[in-house]
Amino acid sequence: MQRHFEHILQELKSALIKMASMAEDAVEKAMESVLTENKDLAASVAQGDEPINTMEMQIDSLIVELLALQQPVASDLRLILAASKINNDLERIGDHAVNLAESGLTIHSKSKPLAQRDDIARMSQLARRMLSDAVDAFIHLDPNIGEAVVLMDDSVDNLNRKVTHELMELMKVDPESVEQAIEWIRVSRNLERVADLATNIAEEVVFIARAKVIKHHAGDPLPK
Amino acid sequence: MQRHFEHILQELKSALIKMASMAEDAVEKAMESVLTENKDLAASVAQGDEPINTMEMQIDSLIVELLALQQPVASDLRLILAASKINNDLERIGDHAVNLAESGLTIHSKSKPLAQRDDIARMSQLARRMLSDAVDAFIHLDPNIGEAVVLMDDSVDNLNRKVTHELMELMKVDPESVEQAIEWIRVSRNLERVADLATNIAEEVVFIARAKVIKHHAGDPLPK
Repeated sequence: MQRHFEHILQELKSALIKMASMAEDAVEKAMESVLTENKDLAASVAQGDEPINTMEMQIDSLIVELLALQQPVASDLRLILAASKINNDLERIGDHAVNLAESGLTIHSKSKPLAQRDDIARMSQLARRMLSDAVDAFIHLDPNIGEAVVLMDDSVDNLNRKVTHELMELMKVDPESVEQAIEWIRVSRNLERVADLATNIAEEVVFIARAKVIKHHAGDPLPK
Repeated sequence: MQRHFEHILQELKSALIKMASMAEDAVEKAMESVLTENKDLAASVAQGDEPINTMEMQIDSLIVELLALQQPVASDLRLILAASKINNDLERIGDHAVNLAESGLTIHSKSKPLAQRDDIARMSQLARRMLSDAVDAFIHLDPNIGEAVVLMDDSVDNLNRKVTHELMELMKVDPESVEQAIEWIRVSRNLERVADLATNIAEEVVFIARAKVIKHHAGDPLPK
């Protein structure tokens, strides 16, 4: 029984690692389609959400199986519940990849390249790095990697604010740019959400590894 | 032991109902602050996320306690896992209420009221109705109410698309309107997300009640 439990737990970890790499891949391809204006690639990512959704349901089944199989000990229980949340976060990252690819279908460069393109490419790099590190933290149950990911989130937030502000200024002086600028704001916001979700995953890892809740600034003094 | 389990399960249900009413209340107050331009109200909602976050952690603790307490039977297990997801969805609705209230701090009417205000008020009504019905479906474990919520989501999506399109057209002809229009697009998008999350909750209820997964169009024919 215990051996069967360990076997399924291992299967759950492998499935999450596979799903994480699918989500990472989807974001990477979606952003390549945005930045290189590759419409075929954009179309393929925009249609390719199904495998990630199927994976989510398979992982949910493994979780139900594990919980139904036997009384998990406290540390396994924490791992399983964190896995359930990470599963949900990865599925949502898949949704954001689809949103990004949809923007990829619409975005086209005008006479001169958009000044915000470099910042957005930087955000994309950061967000994917955070996702990859969060998954790495999960694989090795390493809270230090997890905490480093949480710290990276501010940079992405700042870039998102900067890009959004600049694009709003652009729209004011160049009404023709409105549709494209709105689409780039959408890209920026979706990347910011991917980074948030990577942060959630990292927080879950820290939670399992340290059995301590760091989200919602739980370390802050309690309000009176 | 069984009686203790039932007791905590009841506590979990009550906590979720309370959290749902906090989230509903936050969205309602946030939208009142947006539509009546009540800055004090906006400020209070924008700062009031803490109780919902605390509640999320308390519910998570109840879930861990329930799972650790004894081997739940299959139907209880489904209920507990759905509760975990609903908990997460409600916390995210709280986040969107904060976003809405932040828009409430910025939005101000110009000489004439915005034409999209009525559509946004309608979206707000629909999204809150969906949330309230989804929670009702959960309380009574009624899949029919849940399925009705899922069907309402299209109306909100359509209104979001209409409002966003109209505001983009407005920005093109009136560059002065850019900042306010972007803020209204943000309100529209946050309401659309609240409706999505209410839909998630409704789908979870249908899942528990019918033990059938309806999300990701699981009823569609499988791709070849």
